[in-house]
Amino acid sequence: MAQVSTLQSLIGGRWLGAAAAVPLHSALNNSLIYHTHAESIDFDEAVTYARKTGVPGLMALDFQQRAARLKALALYLVERKEELYAISHLSGATRADSWVDIEGGTGTLFAYASMGSNELPSSNVLHEGPAIALGKKGGFAGTHILVPRGGLAVHINAFNFPIWGLLEKFAPSFLAAMPCIAKPATATSYLTEAVVRMMHGSGLLPEGSLQLVIGGTGDLLDRLNGQDVVTFTGSAATAAKLRSNRNLVEHAIPFNGEADSLNCAILAPDVKPDDAEFELFIKEVAREMTGKSGQKCTAIRRIIVPQNMLDAVGARLRERLAKVTVGDPSIEGVRMGALASKEQQRDVAERVAMLARGNEVLYGAADGFAPLGEGAADGCFFSPTLLMCRDALRNDAVHDVEAFGPVSTLMPYGDIDEALALAARGKGSLVSTLVTRDPKIAAHAVPVAAALHGRVHILDREAAVDSTGHGSPLPQLKHGGPGRAGGGEELGGVRAVRHYLQRAAIQGSPTMLAAVTGEYVRGAAVKESPLHPFRKHFEDLETGDSLLTHRRTVSEADITAFGGISGDFFYMHFDEIAARQSQFGKRIAHGYFVLSAAAGLFVSPGVGPVLANYGLDNLRFVKPVGIGDTIRARLTCKRKVDRNRKDVFGVGQGVVAWDVQVTNQDEELVASYDILTLVSKRE
Amino acid sequence: MAQVSTLQSLIGGRWLGAAAAVPLHSALNNSLIYHTHAESIDFDEAVTYARKTGVPGLMALDFQQRAARLKALALYLVERKEELYAISHLSGATRADSWVDIEGGTGTLFAYASMGSNELPSSNVLHEGPAIALGKKGGFAGTHILVPRGGLAVHINAFNFPIWGLLEKFAPSFLAAMPCIAKPATATSYLTEAVVRMMHGSGLLPEGSLQLVIGGTGDLLDRLNGQDVVTFTGSAATAAKLRSNRNLVEHAIPFNGEADSLNCAILAPDVKPDDAEFELFIKEVAREMTGKSGQKCTAIRRIIVPQNMLDAVGARLRERLAKVTVGDPSIEGVRMGALASKEQQRDVAERVAMLARGNEVLYGAADGFAPLGEGAADGCFFSPTLLMCRDALRNDAVHDVEAFGPVSTLMPYGDIDEALALAARGKGSLVSTLVTRDPKIAAHAVPVAAALHGRVHILDREAAVDSTGHGSPLPQLKHGGPGRAGGGEELGGVRAVRHYLQRAAIQGSPTMLAAVTGEYVRGAAVKESPLHPFRKHFEDLETGDSLLTHRRTVSEADITAFGGISGDFFYMHFDEIAARQSQFGKRIAHGYFVLSAAAGLFVSPGVGPVLANYGLDNLRFVKPVGIGDTIRARLTCKRKVDRNRKDVFGVGQGVVAWDVQVTNQDEELVASYDILTLVSKRE
Repeated sequence: MAQVSTLQSLIGGRWLGAAAAVPLHSALNNSLIYHTHAESIDFDEAVTYARKTGVPGLMALDFQQRAARLKALALYLVERKEELYAISHLSGATRADSWVDIEGGTGTLFAYASMGSNELPSSNVLHEGPAIALGKKGGFAGTHILVPRGGLAVHINAFNFPIWGLLEKFAPSFLAAMPCIAKPATATSYLTEAVVRMMHGSGLLPEGSLQLVIGGTGDLLDRLNGQDVVTFTGSAATAAKLRSNRNLVEHAIPFNGEADSLNCAILAPDVKPDDAEFELFIKEVAREMTGKSGQKCTAIRRIIVPQNMLDAVGARLRERLAKVTVGDPSIEGVRMGALASKEQQRDVAERVAMLARGNEVLYGAADGFAPLGEGAADGCFFSPTLLMCRDALRNDAVHDVEAFGPVSTLMPYGDIDEALALAARGKGSLVSTLVTRDPKIAAHAVPVAAALHGRVHILDREAAVDSTGHGSPLPQLKHGGPGRAGGGEELGGVRAVRHYLQRAAIQGSPTMLAAVTGEYVRGAAVKESPLHPFRKHFEDLETGDSLLTHRRTVSEADITAFGGISGDFFYMHFDEIAARQSQFGKRIAHGYFVLSAAAGLFVSPGVGPVLANYGLDNLRFVKPVGIGDTIRARLTCKRKVDRNRKDVFGVGQGVVAWDVQVTNQDEELVASYDILTLVSKRE
Repeated sequence: MAQVSTLQSLIGGRWLGAAAAVPLHSALNNSLIYHTHAESIDFDEAVTYARKTGVPGLMALDFQQRAARLKALALYLVERKEELYAISHLSGATRADSWVDIEGGTGTLFAYASMGSNELPSSNVLHEGPAIALGKKGGFAGTHILVPRGGLAVHINAFNFPIWGLLEKFAPSFLAAMPCIAKPATATSYLTEAVVRMMHGSGLLPEGSLQLVIGGTGDLLDRLNGQDVVTFTGSAATAAKLRSNRNLVEHAIPFNGEADSLNCAILAPDVKPDDAEFELFIKEVAREMTGKSGQKCTAIRRIIVPQNMLDAVGARLRERLAKVTVGDPSIEGVRMGALASKEQQRDVAERVAMLARGNEVLYGAADGFAPLGEGAADGCFFSPTLLMCRDALRNDAVHDVEAFGPVSTLMPYGDIDEALALAARGKGSLVSTLVTRDPKIAAHAVPVAAALHGRVHILDREAAVDSTGHGSPLPQLKHGGPGRAGGGEELGGVRAVRHYLQRAAIQGSPTMLAAVTGEYVRGAAVKESPLHPFRKHFEDLETGDSLLTHRRTVSEADITAFGGISGDFFYMHFDEIAARQSQFGKRIAHGYFVLSAAAGLFVSPGVGPVLANYGLDNLRFVKPVGIGDTIRARLTCKRKVDRNRKDVFGVGQGVVAWDVQVTNQDEELVASYDILTLVSKRE
């Protein structure tokens, strides 16, 4: 018989733990598989290590470099994923369940690597502009920056997704240069330990950027300060306890909570039993009930259908659930595995009993439940269980009591507003699904539901071809809901990185704001030199490098010629009579002519480091240009981002944004915009 | 003798209170001026009124309409400001102090009216796009919306700015369609009562959108739920107490705290005694010490200067403080008024004693303090007090103990990093000022300081011409700091409105997302009709109205002609040899030609409802257009905003954004952008 190994904590850069403490069992057959360690953790050491080693190590990299590390880490883990699948099997998960945890986790790393690379600077100051003039004389302006907080993140995670749960919080906090101390739920901490061991072994993470706590958090939270952040995923009761921790409260330490909630799916009144949407609804509900054996914060707990569809939905769900083979997922044909632990099994059974009081059980253990697998009777299996509540407006339990397993309650509504009122009885949920074909119903219902949900999933035949499903949080979209769901926000693109940064307003002269943000700010000192800025390589360019062009007088012939080449004969340019009666009182040049002429003024025609103008942002035609007006342009290097990329010829390149101001003979601004270019490096 | 009136609460739409309870006294001479009321408040009534009357009343308006109400309200209050100045005098404030409270308050209303009108939709769904494709077949996409939470806001305010404090929180929550229950600090609640009486009397606010609590909050907080929001400004101790309120914690009710903090000003090492910046530093410190008698959350409490400047700064500050005449502000020449109450006076005296332990008093009451005014000896006056701490790295009190009056401590540093370390000892502050002429010092110091401050003010001679000063929160910039400062965020533009809204991710087909957001989303169904969308008036246009243009084949002659008219002879368009060696391998058309030709394709030349194309956003040249390629454009109405404005001829107009996709003969996207137009209304 194999030796049962002791899980270890990673503290202060060393793996800690040899003596066995709490035993952990296989969900499949209750056999002993791991122990937690008995040695106590010195949380002073952990916190000090994060502050003194973790923070400087992370700050030695910039946002772009940390994004690159995340990508490398994701690739490293993907190569080793089968080791994780093998361990994940012990938790009772099917391959599909494990995919969500393991490849959902690495996918989140890839997504954050990509978003970081696309949206964050190659420095450690994120400018949240634009700068705003704060006076009439041009000497004073204001803007915002986001900077690393200089503290650490404590991530306290749930048992159901021990890998994804770690990685979805690690990715944005790592990008934000925050060292993490991760504390997984003990029941499945062996999976978190396995992935942290890989991450640590990869050599890709700066020292101190990740520590792991197996077991309790001791006095960890009491050692934090206002620069730190705490996140928690788990039960509402534990969330409340942590949120009111005296030290967190006194130091206003940001706490982000994500609690399970009574998520719902609503079948809209327009859907008829023959519509494809009816079957989509049934499939989605059944999938959410049985996926991960219902152990998902996002699982559908309440099935809200029109009164006249109640029986049809109940019958179809019974049919589907009856076809779900439960057991050891390594057995061919098994579609649903076990709950994660005996504790969960007991807890779910108790809550089903509470929910069944006064309600009907449409499907459950009595319908011939017999999980497959050796020792399965000792495992943590649980029958899919469908309850029905005929008067849900007058029942509290179905909206309050969550059985964290393959359990859901069907309930009828009268009209769509009653359905929304039932949904609201959940007091804030992570997600709801609305199945409808009617955009008008969606337009009415979704904003109402949105006030109480972190995510609303609208499902119809068009969406179904690509839908990622009710239960899947995505890195690009916010995860987290109000009230009962914990009130937190996770994921949601670069928003999540911002959550781990500190926003500060900055005021000063434009020159000072430019120095602090690393971006040219209108009104700041510029640098002019005989060398055209388009002839400088990426490394040699500095923000503030600027060119004031020669001038060009706009004639009627320009307008005529531009109309001919563009085909744009708008009356404002060509109809003397109508133009005179317009708001400008005269014929004016095409806006796109001004833009094109400005390019002609600042272009440097020969081959050079500027490879392409790939876009333009924030164009405003501030003042019309009339016949006889004389324009010129000022082109200033505004922002440089080194994404550590190479062009098709293997030459390094960076992204450069240029500020363009086109002015007239009176030095009035006529057009204002940013152009986006790729600029090659010297080497 | 005038009758002392009893302040009233505004609850359930009625003014409540006749019997006198707590006496309130003039800060100038301790005479009795008001009583709070003895009648108890039914908070169930208040909360129910906000939910049942306030929310529907606010939701009957859209963001634009609420912004218009704010503007009207600001104008209404400005007309009546002298009534407020007269009452404000009783609080010990000078005219300049009262200006900050009264006109700072109405200015904040104007600013939010303007930001709301410029940045928010004419509906109650704020789309936080862009939508993101979430599958390969185009059927499924995701985006975010922000919607009113459907709950109410409880605003608990400090005594120092009883009008501004109300209005700066009321403005964004009102825009967000949240009814407010405002609870001012009792000591100066007579000013809040006066302005609420005006606001209520204006008839501009929907019923139930504002209620006022004079006295304690009773069980108000216990009646809230997860759709509500609580904000607090005041002491760190009270913030901690409220933040851990059991009901707030259990329902994850957002709590935004803003506590006083030990803000600092740093004189950078580059500033010499003869520099203009030296005098700017002295002025700023003296102004912040004495303005509002130092009763500002943002006041400078710590003055951090280079060791070799310690004596010079101390001497100049002494000189300046000695010139500050203290007394009844109605007396000619008085520059500093009184503290707000006897309690404050006692409290400040106690804290000065704590700060003075082991430190020197450079200036204080012993320097001939004699406030002017009848009965001033009974008033709440306090001498400007400057302390000096020679070893601030080893002193805790100067970083922890805040005397909320005209009190500040001078301390020396060795190098700039030591100055930043001293600043950090405040454990999180609202604001710091850095006085320097050197952009390099700012670039180094500000990101470090930003991790611990809500705002950093950089002052030099250039900024001084327009600077609004260290102590002034501005509506456009975030107010609030981490840690000791409470960890909250207020103001900061439309960010503050978002704080009172609920963000939800929305997933579904593009058609469904378009219906929910009210904006065209790429891939959604479009509506084509024989009438060109540019010929429809604002009222008749619908998002999704679309035009697919005729085609145009791009020839070498086009490139030649466009080079001639623009003057842009970039090698990629004109140099066959270099273009062949470039990443595209051939000559391509100018990007601006593609843009101009697309305008030629979709323009409707005659006079019509589209008045002007005033801008363009998010232009991306996705694929090059070569000689022989054939392009066409799809123009789709993307977004309509009715700002209730009229053009120069008095004709109503709205803002319309159009989605433009330019494709080639293979239906590949070559250019993508939004154009912004003004479209007139039928009437």
